[in-house]
Amino acid sequence: MVTLNPTHPPRLGGPQSQVRLWPGLIQHYREWLPVSAATPIVTLHEGNTPLIPSPALSQRLGRDCQVYLKLDGLNPTGSFKDRGMTMAVSKAKEAGAEAIICASTGNTSAAAAAFAAKGGMRAYVLIPDGYVAKGKLAQTLMYGAEIIAIKGNFDRALEMVRQISEHYPIALVNSVNRFRLEGQKTAAFEVVDALGDAPDWLCIPVGNAGNITAYWMGFSQYFQQGKATQRPRLHGFEAAGAAPIVLNRVVEHPETVATAIRIGNPASWVKAKASVQVSGGQVDSVTDEEILAAYRLLAAEEGVFCEPASAASVAGLLKWRDQVPVGARVVCVLTGNGLKDPDTATQQGQTQIHTGVEADPATVARLMGF
Amino acid sequence: MVTLNPTHPPRLGGPQSQVRLWPGLIQHYREWLPVSAATPIVTLHEGNTPLIPSPALSQRLGRDCQVYLKLDGLNPTGSFKDRGMTMAVSKAKEAGAEAIICASTGNTSAAAAAFAAKGGMRAYVLIPDGYVAKGKLAQTLMYGAEIIAIKGNFDRALEMVRQISEHYPIALVNSVNRFRLEGQKTAAFEVVDALGDAPDWLCIPVGNAGNITAYWMGFSQYFQQGKATQRPRLHGFEAAGAAPIVLNRVVEHPETVATAIRIGNPASWVKAKASVQVSGGQVDSVTDEEILAAYRLLAAEEGVFCEPASAASVAGLLKWRDQVPVGARVVCVLTGNGLKDPDTATQQGQTQIHTGVEADPATVARLMGF
Repeated sequence: MVTLNPTHPPRLGGPQSQVRLWPGLIQHYREWLPVSAATPIVTLHEGNTPLIPSPALSQRLGRDCQVYLKLDGLNPTGSFKDRGMTMAVSKAKEAGAEAIICASTGNTSAAAAAFAAKGGMRAYVLIPDGYVAKGKLAQTLMYGAEIIAIKGNFDRALEMVRQISEHYPIALVNSVNRFRLEGQKTAAFEVVDALGDAPDWLCIPVGNAGNITAYWMGFSQYFQQGKATQRPRLHGFEAAGAAPIVLNRVVEHPETVATAIRIGNPASWVKAKASVQVSGGQVDSVTDEEILAAYRLLAAEEGVFCEPASAASVAGLLKWRDQVPVGARVVCVLTGNGLKDPDTATQQGQTQIHTGVEADPATVARLMGF
Repeated sequence: MVTLNPTHPPRLGGPQSQVRLWPGLIQHYREWLPVSAATPIVTLHEGNTPLIPSPALSQRLGRDCQVYLKLDGLNPTGSFKDRGMTMAVSKAKEAGAEAIICASTGNTSAAAAAFAAKGGMRAYVLIPDGYVAKGKLAQTLMYGAEIIAIKGNFDRALEMVRQISEHYPIALVNSVNRFRLEGQKTAAFEVVDALGDAPDWLCIPVGNAGNITAYWMGFSQYFQQGKATQRPRLHGFEAAGAAPIVLNRVVEHPETVATAIRIGNPASWVKAKASVQVSGGQVDSVTDEEILAAYRLLAAEEGVFCEPASAASVAGLLKWRDQVPVGARVVCVLTGNGLKDPDTATQQGQTQIHTGVEADPATVARLMGF
């Protein structure tokens, strides 16, 4: 057990900094996870992602607030889903499953495919027929997963993978898989280990509401074991066009530029709501305009290129900035890599391309303002 | 200074594993780098990327060889270029530059733009007119760099950025910038710090030949200071259609699917050749077919999705596998993230999409071989 000394938290980049001999999150946090010596660990050395200070956001908040960004898009497949998938696939292998299956069109399918490949298992991804362009599935296909497009909608695909996993030796790794949240909670451990204590606020995008629930599990466990002196207020942000928790009703046709949180009926709705309430925080929504403004701000002022959905955490923080207590430490979770969504980046690119410029240094210098 | 005990190298995932309180590579390795207290450090907390064992490759080599992959595509902008750019931009800021400039259409421009954004400096990228599709530049544009497309070819663009940097307060961050290699050499430090000693072989893609040169600098400095008992043999691999060092002549029109190493006249040609020779290794070439086979193998068997150019290191290792000594430790450098090149991934996806499948569990199960 670490002795806490909250008046002298370890500084980022202090003498504790170490080169990564990082075994992946299960091995590092194994005493906190439901694994045993019998669990074959399938790892891509996920986790241990950077937590970086954000001067641009700290300055916007003022009043001595310190804002940090948790860059979970630097996980091996480019999203936080790797944290849950190392657990889900390791436990599936332990249970003797020959294959894994999920219904997903995005980050979950990529993570499932990658960990299945690493574990020498087959992976199947069910999607609605005609729903997704091949480009969106390129990463999943590269890892060798098979895509099965069924005649039916996404709910039907979800129902199917449940039924199949009940009747065949194939493990379901959708968010109903309880091991996913176990893996994901390690992100909270990392935040505490990096800051020396839990932050005052945690801002996080909310789609299926699993990640906010997992963070709360992690913060709570560390708090209960004396590894942190507090738990943060959870501030979750849905996209305005896909805000079932805020609206308190299922959204039949969710729409938002933040595709990774375009979800109308979150799997972890009840748990998330309870966690947020206990924490003293709230779930709010942010518009696509606010999301895209935060997305551009992060790239242009912090050099951080995230998925649009990730920027919901920062959009929400900016919306709530006047409520942040003086001197608070705030962590914004950036869940996915901007490279996952090149189309939005192409549309949102903030600068012009000057074309047809004479190949003359003075001309170019004038263009640059010299 | 660490006392070496080569008979008991620290194991990956051994008790030394630590959560990353990682300040970025300059602060971690500052005694090895040309920085001082006066250098304003511009960092995205780059470096400290995973070194992961590759059972699939170790098995293919046999004879007790151990192969590791250095995942430098998990740097903040998705490539190893971040290592050099944190140094180049920090030193530019120290020298009072108001802006940075480079001629590049790929990973260098993205890294330059991101670090300029973080450092509060303007960034300019010169490219030949009509040369590059906007999609390839989306990441660079997101970070807020300005793109100037000149009437002229790439050589002219290179000449122009040199001239401009000589006459205006703008720093050149192309590979002629000597600080780039200083930053890049830290990847060699990380490999030694993770393995407990230098590997026996280093396999690495060769384009501009800067990275292989930088690795040699790093291994040599650690060796000279007693942090490693040996230096590795360097095995560099050019693409067959862009192999000036192998052919011993400039390639006027380089062509390869591995765009990040599509270079006909490498900036670090002489230094790289000397380093390889001293190391007892060689520079060879691999065909696009070999590169793509390695690219697919890494994704499907190791769950690692890299840029095509990165896979040249693995293609080369497989080509040379019979020459690897018994029991050797081999590190293959994977320089860039697969998400950087969605087009090639879409073309190379290894599995089929089954469309129009009846939404019936038994039908789907049969399709899956149950």
